[in-house]
Amino acid sequence: MVATDDFADLLAANDTYATDFEYGGFDGVARAGVAIVTCMDSRIDPLGMVGLKPGDAKIFRNPGGRVTPQALEALVMGAHLLNVQRVLVIPHTRCAVASNSEAEIRAKVTASAGVDASWQPFHVVEDQVRALAEDVSKVRSHPLIPDTVKVGGFIYDVDSGRLTQHV
Amino acid sequence: MVATDDFADLLAANDTYATDFEYGGFDGVARAGVAIVTCMDSRIDPLGMVGLKPGDAKIFRNPGGRVTPQALEALVMGAHLLNVQRVLVIPHTRCAVASNSEAEIRAKVTASAGVDASWQPFHVVEDQVRALAEDVSKVRSHPLIPDTVKVGGFIYDVDSGRLTQHV
Repeated sequence: MVATDDFADLLAANDTYATDFEYGGFDGVARAGVAIVTCMDSRIDPLGMVGLKPGDAKIFRNPGGRVTPQALEALVMGAHLLNVQRVLVIPHTRCAVASNSEAEIRAKVTASAGVDASWQPFHVVEDQVRALAEDVSKVRSHPLIPDTVKVGGFIYDVDSGRLTQHV
Repeated sequence: MVATDDFADLLAANDTYATDFEYGGFDGVARAGVAIVTCMDSRIDPLGMVGLKPGDAKIFRNPGGRVTPQALEALVMGAHLLNVQRVLVIPHTRCAVASNSEAEIRAKVTASAGVDASWQPFHVVEDQVRALAEDVSKVRSHPLIPDTVKVGGFIYDVDSGRLTQHV
Protein backbone atom coordinates (compact mmCIF):
# COMPACT_ATOMS: atom_id res chain seq x y z
CA MET A 1 0.00 0.00 0.00
CA VAL A 2 1.19 3.48 -0.82
CA ALA A 3 -0.21 6.88 -0.08
CA THR A 4 1.01 10.11 -1.59
CA ASP A 5 -0.48 13.56 -1.51
CA ASP A 6 -0.51 13.57 -5.31
CA PHE A 7 -3.90 11.88 -5.46
CA ALA A 8 -5.37 12.81 -2.08
CA ASP A 9 -8.31 14.76 -3.54
CA LEU A 10 -9.29 11.93 -5.89
CA LEU A 11 -8.97 9.31 -3.15
CA ALA A 12 -11.10 11.43 -0.84
CA ALA A 13 -13.76 11.56 -3.56
CA ASN A 14 -13.43 7.80 -3.96
CA ASP A 15 -14.04 7.36 -0.25
CA THR A 16 -17.37 9.14 -0.66
CA TYR A 17 -18.16 7.03 -3.75
CA ALA A 18 -17.39 3.80 -1.89
CA THR A 19 -19.51 4.81 1.09
CA ASP A 20 -22.61 5.03 -1.10
CA PHE A 21 -21.60 2.17 -3.44
CA GLU A 22 -24.54 0.33 -4.93
CA TYR A 23 -22.96 -2.00 -7.51
CA GLY A 24 -21.21 -4.55 -5.26
CA GLY A 25 -21.60 -8.26 -6.04
CA PHE A 26 -22.10 -7.78 -9.79
CA ASP A 27 -20.24 -10.11 -12.08
CA GLY A 28 -18.38 -8.71 -15.09
CA VAL A 29 -20.93 -9.47 -17.82
CA ALA A 30 -22.56 -6.69 -19.79
CA ARG A 31 -26.04 -6.70 -18.24
CA ALA A 32 -27.51 -4.76 -21.18
CA GLY A 33 -25.56 -6.88 -23.69
CA VAL A 34 -23.74 -3.81 -25.02
CA ALA A 35 -20.09 -3.10 -25.85
CA ILE A 36 -18.92 0.37 -26.88
CA VAL A 37 -15.66 1.23 -28.65
CA THR A 38 -15.06 4.96 -28.32
CA CYS A 39 -12.44 7.67 -27.91
CA MET A 40 -10.56 8.58 -24.73
CA ASP A 41 -11.86 12.13 -25.14
CA SER A 42 -12.82 13.87 -21.90
CA ARG A 43 -16.15 15.09 -23.32
CA ILE A 44 -17.55 11.58 -23.79
CA ASP A 45 -19.76 9.88 -21.21
CA PRO A 46 -20.17 6.49 -22.91
CA LEU A 47 -22.81 5.07 -20.57
CA GLY A 48 -24.78 8.25 -20.01
CA MET A 49 -25.06 9.10 -23.69
CA VAL A 50 -27.03 5.93 -24.39
CA GLY A 51 -28.92 5.82 -21.11
CA LEU A 52 -26.95 2.97 -19.53
CA LYS A 53 -25.43 2.60 -16.06
CA PRO A 54 -22.48 0.77 -14.47
CA GLY A 55 -22.85 -2.97 -14.99
CA ASP A 56 -24.56 -2.63 -18.37
CA ALA A 57 -21.74 -2.40 -20.92
CA LYS A 58 -18.11 -3.13 -21.71
CA ILE A 59 -16.34 0.08 -22.70
CA PHE A 60 -13.15 0.02 -24.79
CA ARG A 61 -11.49 3.43 -25.30
CA ASN A 62 -8.44 4.65 -27.20
CA PRO A 63 -7.44 7.76 -29.19
CA GLY A 64 -10.02 8.13 -31.96
CA GLY A 65 -12.23 5.23 -30.88
CA ARG A 66 -10.54 2.86 -33.34
CA VAL A 67 -11.11 -0.86 -33.79
CA THR A 68 -7.54 -1.97 -33.18
CA PRO A 69 -6.45 -5.61 -32.91
CA GLN A 70 -6.80 -5.26 -29.13
CA ALA A 71 -10.34 -3.91 -29.53
CA LEU A 72 -11.21 -7.00 -31.58
CA GLU A 73 -9.63 -9.20 -28.91
CA ALA A 74 -11.79 -7.43 -26.32
CA LEU A 75 -14.93 -7.86 -28.41
CA VAL A 76 -14.24 -11.58 -28.94
CA MET A 77 -14.09 -12.04 -25.18
CA GLY A 78 -17.14 -9.83 -24.81
CA ALA A 79 -19.20 -11.84 -27.28
CA HIS A 80 -18.31 -15.25 -25.87
CA LEU A 81 -17.71 -14.71 -22.18
CA LEU A 82 -19.44 -11.47 -21.20
CA ASN A 83 -22.88 -11.38 -22.83
CA VAL A 84 -22.09 -8.84 -25.54
CA GLN A 85 -24.82 -8.94 -28.21
CA ARG A 86 -24.51 -5.43 -29.65
CA VAL A 87 -21.42 -3.38 -30.46
CA LEU A 88 -21.38 0.38 -31.01
CA VAL A 89 -18.27 1.95 -32.55
CA ILE A 90 -18.34 5.67 -31.71
CA PRO A 91 -15.74 8.23 -32.84
CA HIS A 92 -16.69 11.87 -32.33
CA THR A 93 -16.62 15.37 -33.79
CA ARG A 94 -13.66 17.70 -33.13
CA CYS A 95 -11.36 14.76 -32.33
CA ALA A 96 -7.66 15.68 -32.02
CA VAL A 97 -6.46 12.62 -33.92
CA ALA A 98 -8.97 13.22 -36.73
CA SER A 99 -8.30 16.95 -37.15
CA ASN A 100 -4.49 17.09 -37.08
CA SER A 101 -1.93 15.41 -39.33
CA GLU A 102 0.64 13.05 -37.87
CA ALA A 103 3.27 15.73 -38.62
CA GLU A 104 1.27 18.42 -36.81
CA ILE A 105 0.81 16.35 -33.67
CA ARG A 106 4.46 15.32 -33.71
CA ALA A 107 5.55 18.96 -34.10
CA LYS A 108 3.34 20.06 -31.19
CA VAL A 109 4.61 17.27 -28.92
CA THR A 110 8.22 17.99 -29.92
CA ALA A 111 7.78 21.70 -29.15
CA SER A 112 6.10 20.98 -25.80
CA ALA A 113 8.46 18.18 -24.73
CA GLY A 114 11.61 19.97 -25.82
CA VAL A 115 12.95 16.74 -27.31
CA ASP A 116 12.50 15.24 -30.76
CA ALA A 117 9.30 13.14 -30.86
CA SER A 118 9.84 11.89 -34.40
CA TRP A 119 10.03 8.26 -33.30
CA GLN A 120 6.58 8.29 -31.63
CA PRO A 121 3.64 7.23 -33.85
CA PHE A 122 0.23 8.88 -33.29
CA HIS A 123 -2.11 7.01 -35.67
CA VAL A 124 -4.12 9.96 -36.95
CA VAL A 125 -7.38 9.43 -38.84
CA GLU A 126 -7.47 11.04 -42.28
CA ASP A 127 -11.10 10.32 -43.17
CA GLN A 128 -13.23 9.70 -40.10
CA VAL A 129 -16.33 8.38 -41.89
CA ARG A 130 -14.33 6.01 -44.06
CA ALA A 131 -12.30 4.84 -41.05
CA LEU A 132 -15.55 4.18 -39.18
CA ALA A 133 -16.91 2.06 -42.03
CA GLU A 134 -13.68 0.07 -42.14
CA ASP A 135 -13.71 -0.37 -38.37
CA VAL A 136 -17.30 -1.64 -38.36
CA SER A 137 -16.38 -4.08 -41.14
CA LYS A 138 -13.52 -5.41 -39.03
CA VAL A 139 -15.96 -6.30 -36.27
CA ARG A 140 -18.65 -7.71 -38.56
CA SER A 141 -16.21 -9.87 -40.51
CA HIS A 142 -14.19 -11.15 -37.56
CA PRO A 143 -14.25 -14.97 -37.62
CA LEU A 144 -14.65 -15.22 -33.84
CA ILE A 145 -17.46 -12.66 -33.51
CA PRO A 146 -20.82 -14.36 -34.21
CA ASP A 147 -23.10 -13.03 -36.95
CA THR A 148 -25.80 -12.71 -34.31
CA VAL A 149 -23.87 -9.79 -32.79
CA LYS A 150 -25.28 -6.51 -34.13
CA VAL A 151 -22.67 -3.88 -34.99
CA GLY A 152 -23.29 -0.19 -35.68
CA GLY A 153 -21.03 2.76 -36.44
CA PHE A 154 -22.00 6.16 -35.02
CA ILE A 155 -20.45 9.62 -34.75
CA TYR A 156 -20.96 11.45 -31.48
CA ASP A 157 -21.37 15.22 -31.64
CA VAL A 158 -19.51 16.60 -28.63
CA ASP A 159 -21.43 19.88 -28.83
CA SER A 160 -24.98 18.53 -29.03
CA GLY A 161 -24.55 15.22 -27.22
CA ARG A 162 -26.21 13.51 -30.18
CA LEU A 163 -25.32 10.21 -31.87
CA THR A 164 -25.78 9.75 -35.63
CA GLN A 165 -25.59 6.27 -37.11
CA HIS A 166 -23.41 6.10 -40.25
CA VAL A 167 -23.11 2.38 -40.85
CA MET B 1 -27.07 8.25 -42.37
CA VAL B 2 -28.42 4.85 -41.43
CA ALA B 3 -31.15 3.75 -39.10
CA THR B 4 -31.83 0.21 -38.00
CA ASP B 5 -34.05 -1.16 -35.30
CA ASP B 6 -31.02 -2.84 -33.74
CA PHE B 7 -30.10 0.25 -31.74
CA ALA B 8 -33.46 2.03 -31.49
CA ASP B 9 -33.65 1.84 -27.69
CA LEU B 10 -30.14 3.26 -27.23
CA LEU B 11 -30.72 6.03 -29.77
CA ALA B 12 -33.98 6.94 -28.05
CA ALA B 13 -32.07 7.22 -24.77
CA ASN B 14 -29.47 9.34 -26.57
CA ASP B 15 -32.20 11.66 -27.76
CA THR B 16 -33.17 12.29 -24.15
CA TYR B 17 -29.50 12.78 -23.21
CA ALA B 18 -28.98 15.30 -26.04
CA THR B 19 -32.11 17.21 -25.09
CA ASP B 20 -30.69 17.96 -21.64
CA PHE B 21 -27.07 18.19 -22.79
CA GLU B 22 -24.94 20.50 -20.66
CA TYR B 23 -21.39 19.93 -21.94
CA GLY B 24 -21.53 21.58 -25.37
CA GLY B 25 -18.72 23.92 -26.43
CA PHE B 26 -16.04 22.26 -24.30
CA ASP B 27 -12.69 21.63 -25.91
CA GLY B 28 -11.00 18.24 -25.54
CA VAL B 29 -8.56 19.05 -22.76
CA ALA B 30 -8.76 17.31 -19.41
CA ARG B 31 -10.22 20.09 -17.25
CA ALA B 32 -9.13 18.38 -14.03
CA GLY B 33 -5.73 17.48 -15.54
CA VAL B 34 -6.39 13.76 -15.07
CA ALA B 35 -5.92 10.72 -17.32
CA ILE B 36 -7.11 7.27 -16.29
CA VAL B 37 -6.01 3.94 -17.79
CA THR B 38 -8.47 1.26 -16.71
CA CYS B 39 -10.25 -1.93 -17.75
CA MET B 40 -13.21 -2.22 -20.13
CA ASP B 41 -15.09 -3.99 -17.33
CA SER B 42 -18.77 -3.10 -17.09
CA ARG B 43 -18.59 -2.55 -13.32
CA ILE B 44 -16.19 0.40 -13.58
CA ASP B 45 -17.40 4.03 -13.63
CA PRO B 46 -14.03 5.75 -14.13
CA LEU B 47 -15.20 9.32 -13.60
CA GLY B 48 -17.70 8.64 -10.84
CA MET B 49 -15.29 6.60 -8.76
CA VAL B 50 -12.95 9.57 -8.32
CA GLY B 51 -15.63 12.26 -8.18
CA LEU B 52 -15.04 13.66 -11.67
CA LYS B 53 -17.50 14.53 -14.44
CA PRO B 54 -17.48 14.71 -18.25
CA GLY B 55 -14.83 17.18 -19.44
CA ASP B 56 -12.46 16.46 -16.56
CA ALA B 57 -10.39 13.46 -17.68
CA LYS B 58 -9.07 11.42 -20.58
CA ILE B 59 -10.09 7.78 -20.16
CA PHE B 60 -8.19 4.97 -21.89
CA ARG B 61 -9.72 1.49 -21.47
CA ASN B 62 -8.72 -1.99 -22.60
CA PRO B 63 -8.95 -5.54 -21.19
CA GLY B 64 -7.13 -5.50 -17.86
CA GLY B 65 -6.41 -1.76 -17.83
CA ARG B 66 -2.92 -2.31 -19.24
CA VAL B 67 -0.36 0.29 -20.27
CA THR B 68 0.06 -0.85 -23.87
CA PRO B 69 2.10 1.03 -26.49
CA GLN B 70 -1.15 2.71 -27.56
CA ALA B 71 -1.87 3.76 -23.98
CA LEU B 72 1.57 5.41 -23.86
CA GLU B 73 0.85 7.12 -27.17
CA ALA B 74 -2.42 8.42 -25.70
CA LEU B 75 -0.68 9.64 -22.54
CA VAL B 76 2.01 11.46 -24.55
CA MET B 77 -0.72 13.35 -26.40
CA GLY B 78 -2.54 13.89 -23.13
CA ALA B 79 0.52 15.34 -21.38
CA HIS B 80 1.50 17.70 -24.19
CA LEU B 81 -1.75 18.64 -25.92
CA LEU B 82 -4.57 17.98 -23.47
CA ASN B 83 -3.53 19.26 -20.05
CA VAL B 84 -2.86 15.86 -18.42
CA GLN B 85 -0.84 16.37 -15.23
CA ARG B 86 -1.80 13.22 -13.31
CA VAL B 87 -2.17 9.64 -14.53
CA LEU B 88 -4.00 6.88 -12.66
CA VAL B 89 -3.50 3.29 -13.81
CA ILE B 90 -6.39 1.24 -12.42
CA PRO B 91 -6.85 -2.52 -12.89
CA HIS B 92 -9.52 -4.14 -10.70
CA THR B 93 -10.44 -7.14 -8.59
CA ARG B 94 -12.18 -10.17 -10.17
CA CYS B 95 -10.90 -9.24 -13.65
CA ALA B 96 -11.46 -11.94 -16.30
CA VAL B 97 -8.03 -11.48 -17.88
CA ALA B 98 -6.30 -11.63 -14.48
CA SER B 99 -8.16 -14.69 -13.16
CA ASN B 100 -8.06 -17.03 -16.18
CA SER B 101 -5.09 -18.48 -18.04
CA GLU B 102 -4.69 -17.81 -21.75
CA ALA B 103 -5.52 -21.49 -22.34
CA GLU B 104 -8.69 -21.26 -20.27
CA ILE B 105 -9.99 -18.19 -22.11
CA ARG B 106 -9.09 -19.74 -25.46
CA ALA B 107 -10.90 -22.97 -24.53
CA LYS B 108 -14.03 -21.07 -23.45
CA VAL B 109 -14.08 -18.97 -26.62
CA THR B 110 -13.48 -22.04 -28.78
CA ALA B 111 -16.34 -23.89 -27.08
CA SER B 112 -18.70 -20.92 -27.42
CA ALA B 113 -17.71 -19.99 -30.98
CA GLY B 114 -17.71 -23.56 -32.27
CA VAL B 115 -14.49 -22.88 -34.17
CA ASP B 116 -10.88 -23.17 -33.10
CA ALA B 117 -9.75 -19.90 -31.45
CA SER B 118 -6.13 -21.00 -31.03
CA TRP B 119 -4.82 -18.19 -33.23
CA GLN B 120 -6.40 -15.40 -31.15
CA PRO B 121 -4.19 -13.95 -28.39
CA PHE B 122 -5.84 -12.72 -25.16
CA HIS B 123 -2.97 -11.16 -23.16
CA VAL B 124 -3.85 -12.49 -19.72
CA VAL B 125 -2.24 -11.03 -16.60
CA GLU B 126 -0.47 -13.58 -14.41
CA ASP B 127 0.42 -11.34 -11.49
CA GLN B 128 -1.79 -8.26 -11.31
CA VAL B 129 0.22 -6.33 -8.70
CA ARG B 130 3.49 -6.94 -10.50
CA ALA B 131 1.95 -6.00 -13.85
CA LEU B 132 0.64 -2.80 -12.30
CA ALA B 133 4.09 -1.85 -11.02
CA GLU B 134 5.58 -2.54 -14.45
CA ASP B 135 2.84 -0.52 -16.14
CA VAL B 136 3.36 2.47 -13.86
CA SER B 137 7.11 2.29 -14.56
CA LYS B 138 6.39 2.40 -18.29
CA VAL B 139 4.58 5.70 -17.86
CA ARG B 140 7.08 7.20 -15.42
CA SER B 141 10.10 6.30 -17.57
CA HIS B 142 8.63 7.28 -20.94
CA PRO B 143 10.97 9.80 -22.59
CA LEU B 144 8.07 11.91 -23.89
CA ILE B 145 6.08 12.04 -20.62
CA PRO B 146 7.45 14.86 -18.42
CA ASP B 147 8.70 14.11 -14.90
CA THR B 148 6.22 16.71 -13.67
CA VAL B 149 3.37 14.31 -14.52
CA LYS B 150 2.40 12.39 -11.39
CA VAL B 151 1.66 8.69 -11.93
CA GLY B 152 -0.04 6.31 -9.52
CA GLY B 153 -1.07 2.65 -9.67
CA PHE B 154 -4.30 1.62 -7.95
CA ILE B 155 -6.48 -1.47 -7.73
CA TYR B 156 -10.23 -0.91 -7.82
CA ASP B 157 -12.38 -3.23 -5.73
CA VAL B 158 -15.49 -3.90 -7.82
CA ASP B 159 -17.42 -5.03 -4.73
CA SER B 160 -16.70 -2.10 -2.44
CA GLY B 161 -16.12 0.65 -4.99
CA ARG B 162 -12.85 1.45 -3.23
CA LEU B 163 -9.45 2.33 -4.76
CA THR B 164 -6.20 1.24 -3.10
CA GLN B 165 -2.93 2.77 -4.20
CA HIS B 166 -0.19 0.18 -4.74
CA VAL B 167 2.54 2.18 -6.43
